[in-house]
Amino acid sequence: MFESAELGHKISKQVWKKEVPGLREGLLDAQLDLSLAKKFSVVILVAGVDCAGKGETVNILNEWMDPRYIETHALRELTDEEQERPQMWRYWRALPPQGKVGVFIGTWYSAPLVDNVYGTIKNADLDQQLERIIRFEKMLCDEGALVLKFWLHLSKDEQKKRLKLLESDPKTRWRVTDTDWDHYKKYSKFRKVSERMLRSTSTAESPWTIVEGSDPRYRYLTIGKAILGSMRQRLDTPDTLCHKDPVPPILPTIDNLLILKTLDMTKKLKKAEYESELEKYQGKLNLLTRHSDFKKLSVVVAFEGNDAAGKGGTIRRITQALDARQYRIIPVASPTDEERAQPYMWRFWRNIPRKSRFAIFDRTWYGRVLVERVEGYCERKDWMRAYGEINDFEEQMIRNKTVVVKFWLSITREEQLRRFKEREKIGFKRYKITDEDWRNREKWDDYELAVCDMIDRTSTEIAPWTLVEANDKNYARIKVLKTLCEQIEKALEK
Amino acid sequence: MFESAELGHKISKQVWKKEVPGLREGLLDAQLDLSLAKKFSVVILVAGVDCAGKGETVNILNEWMDPRYIETHALRELTDEEQERPQMWRYWRALPPQGKVGVFIGTWYSAPLVDNVYGTIKNADLDQQLERIIRFEKMLCDEGALVLKFWLHLSKDEQKKRLKLLESDPKTRWRVTDTDWDHYKKYSKFRKVSERMLRSTSTAESPWTIVEGSDPRYRYLTIGKAILGSMRQRLDTPDTLCHKDPVPPILPTIDNLLILKTLDMTKKLKKAEYESELEKYQGKLNLLTRHSDFKKLSVVVAFEGNDAAGKGGTIRRITQALDARQYRIIPVASPTDEERAQPYMWRFWRNIPRKSRFAIFDRTWYGRVLVERVEGYCERKDWMRAYGEINDFEEQMIRNKTVVVKFWLSITREEQLRRFKEREKIGFKRYKITDEDWRNREKWDDYELAVCDMIDRTSTEIAPWTLVEANDKNYARIKVLKTLCEQIEKALEK
Repeated sequence: MFESAELGHKISKQVWKKEVPGLREGLLDAQLDLSLAKKFSVVILVAGVDCAGKGETVNILNEWMDPRYIETHALRELTDEEQERPQMWRYWRALPPQGKVGVFIGTWYSAPLVDNVYGTIKNADLDQQLERIIRFEKMLCDEGALVLKFWLHLSKDEQKKRLKLLESDPKTRWRVTDTDWDHYKKYSKFRKVSERMLRSTSTAESPWTIVEGSDPRYRYLTIGKAILGSMRQRLDTPDTLCHKDPVPPILPTIDNLLILKTLDMTKKLKKAEYESELEKYQGKLNLLTRHSDFKKLSVVVAFEGNDAAGKGGTIRRITQALDARQYRIIPVASPTDEERAQPYMWRFWRNIPRKSRFAIFDRTWYGRVLVERVEGYCERKDWMRAYGEINDFEEQMIRNKTVVVKFWLSITREEQLRRFKEREKIGFKRYKITDEDWRNREKWDDYELAVCDMIDRTSTEIAPWTLVEANDKNYARIKVLKTLCEQIEKALEK
Repeated sequence: MFESAELGHKISKQVWKKEVPGLREGLLDAQLDLSLAKKFSVVILVAGVDCAGKGETVNILNEWMDPRYIETHALRELTDEEQERPQMWRYWRALPPQGKVGVFIGTWYSAPLVDNVYGTIKNADLDQQLERIIRFEKMLCDEGALVLKFWLHLSKDEQKKRLKLLESDPKTRWRVTDTDWDHYKKYSKFRKVSERMLRSTSTAESPWTIVEGSDPRYRYLTIGKAILGSMRQRLDTPDTLCHKDPVPPILPTIDNLLILKTLDMTKKLKKAEYESELEKYQGKLNLLTRHSDFKKLSVVVAFEGNDAAGKGGTIRRITQALDARQYRIIPVASPTDEERAQPYMWRFWRNIPRKSRFAIFDRTWYGRVLVERVEGYCERKDWMRAYGEINDFEEQMIRNKTVVVKFWLSITREEQLRRFKEREKIGFKRYKITDEDWRNREKWDDYELAVCDMIDRTSTEIAPWTLVEANDKNYARIKVLKTLCEQIEKALEK
């Protein structure tokens, strides 16, 4: 979930200078239109890791926008007036009216997060509080508000660096408190609980946007553009569409630094090494399935990847290690009539394996946020809600002691072309290449964006994505087998 | 919440014979249309108190409808196949496809309810499970399913009667198990938890319908007609309306026995008695506000009632007992510009009192489900979601140690006419009667229905409605004062 916010996103001074004037103008225009039309309010939450630049970001927004139509609320300790009212009272009285923008730094997420990290409240209580928040935000959206939530993220190293930097300067030393260092010591706990929180409160109507916090220019520009994009979309949607698509857009990262592009696609494995590793991990996998505790588990393996990335061959390397009675391969193509008459997730629920069995999905429930999104087979609000439904689905399997292992097999555009041409030449492989494959290829960039969004929104601690550099088939197959073994081992140890 | 389901609803044989043929025909027609259009599925849940006739009801539905397009699922113990999968798997595989009707007797509500009553899971865990259910049902609705939920209710006496009756007949004795009697012993706990459950899972898209279970004809006809009404509405809504109103209709009770009609409107208090009681309870109220623990509380008094029911005079009898610095009266009329630019509940949140203060609302947040509903000032989906938002609002106040006391002042149609005419005659009261009052009067029946729905959906154990027979002003004032004292006393004892 935080992977894409640890890539070292950066915006150069040059780009910054070029982009800012247009953005400011756009924001002012949008604000003016909002204040004239008075049809909805904009609620902006800026939350995240300590010292990730929340305050600075809000300062910039205030600088860029028209202060008459923006109100900032940095809520910290409860006042005595607030203490005597229900928890949410302080937020209700700070809500912006229609036509205005309200920015919140101390948000309704702070208390539940900190309380859970410090053990004051248990997970069930956290969930209870989060559900109240979901209901509150749903009410805001139902009442027409545009709710935009930004989470500023820093890696552990980056946070330390920032704390040190602030401390070293007498002008900013006061900003680093003991609490900040206490929180830093609990970094991994904070990360875990934050992830749980973001996952369950990222709804279709008000999804979180996770923003890397280390480079100020990147941070400001990302948030500014997201606000502008969302406001513009809502302002330009005619009322007659009866809010058909009130979902704020997901915008592509502004520096074009995508997690998929950070993979080292030159990774290779020589034939001899491949063969010995293959034997090793196939043997290991087979052994694991005969472990005495394996009967308490089941395994779901999800394969997604570029066309011609080698999913089929990789799956065969797994099944070679298994007993045929023990696994089922589920190739996912267009739904059958029967499946079409059911909720989208039905075709996957029906294939959940029994204990001590494998279900290997060749393409998966992620189709909705990949091909259906890119090809426009379903409306945006439908694929937006799919992220939450998918996380729910995987969580339910995992609670039931299913090991969920998800692979994205990645090849480069050039490698794909080479494989397509090769397939066309070889007779028995020709059936594997269709016009559709060529069409999909034309939308390479759209797919790439959709994949990165998918990773951001569904790579969770309990069900992480494994990205596999698959230009070299040998390397890919071993990485998959090895990861699969590790995940099953981890589950057996529990 | 269960008040309307303990009134002794009954349908005579005669009415039954007259109604059933048309209903059956309507249901068969609707089923046929559904199976041809195949645009959505219908998921019917029949849940409720033991022995309230769930099974019999489902049998009748099967008799009335076309068995080719209806599937019944009475899920009890988990099969071994089910045990090996996530909890919800059994329901996923039983979901009806588009074009069909699925009826569930053992529903996803059974386990959380029983587990909480028997103390296996705590309240926070219950809420967690209920939220998962809400997400599941929301997914079904988002996917286009029509979800209809019926809760069969019996009062404690009625349940005992039914258990005895079944036991006395050798043909039905087998149906009464030890578990049934165990559950009966925990009746009040079951009632409490059921209420909590129904309250939090009654969403705008899939609200509960509570049905009195004692009279079979009433039960069958109510549920049959509700199913038909909801199916018909969805079938007849053109697709082009982009599901503007996917909310199933609330239907009026079929025997016209409304809780408001059960009030004894002849109740009276003689002048002398009134005066001594008034002194007594005003004194008591004053004393309570000077109780040492009163500073930990705050009090919200909500007044709703027919026009000219005497709200103003009653409020004055309360305030006479209080220090002027201690209370505020909030007259709720049309919203101000500022209030109109905020979510509906904002104007009430801003008036939540501080500790040891009273806020007395002359008309309230219930306006949305009364005048706004009847006059069509807001869409059905908006007032339908208001019930949940209102329950949320009151729950948050109560958790914050606010005593929430709600009064409905009820007068008869005749008495209202008498008062209207009187007001027109007396100079200084003339401002109290407007054309709008006369217009509202014409919609008497619609208002009555709306009031009864309001009571069914928002009279909860933590914030019950007190219905006040107000044809006699003396009686009404004393009942209000007495209730208010009792509620504050109860809160002080906690």
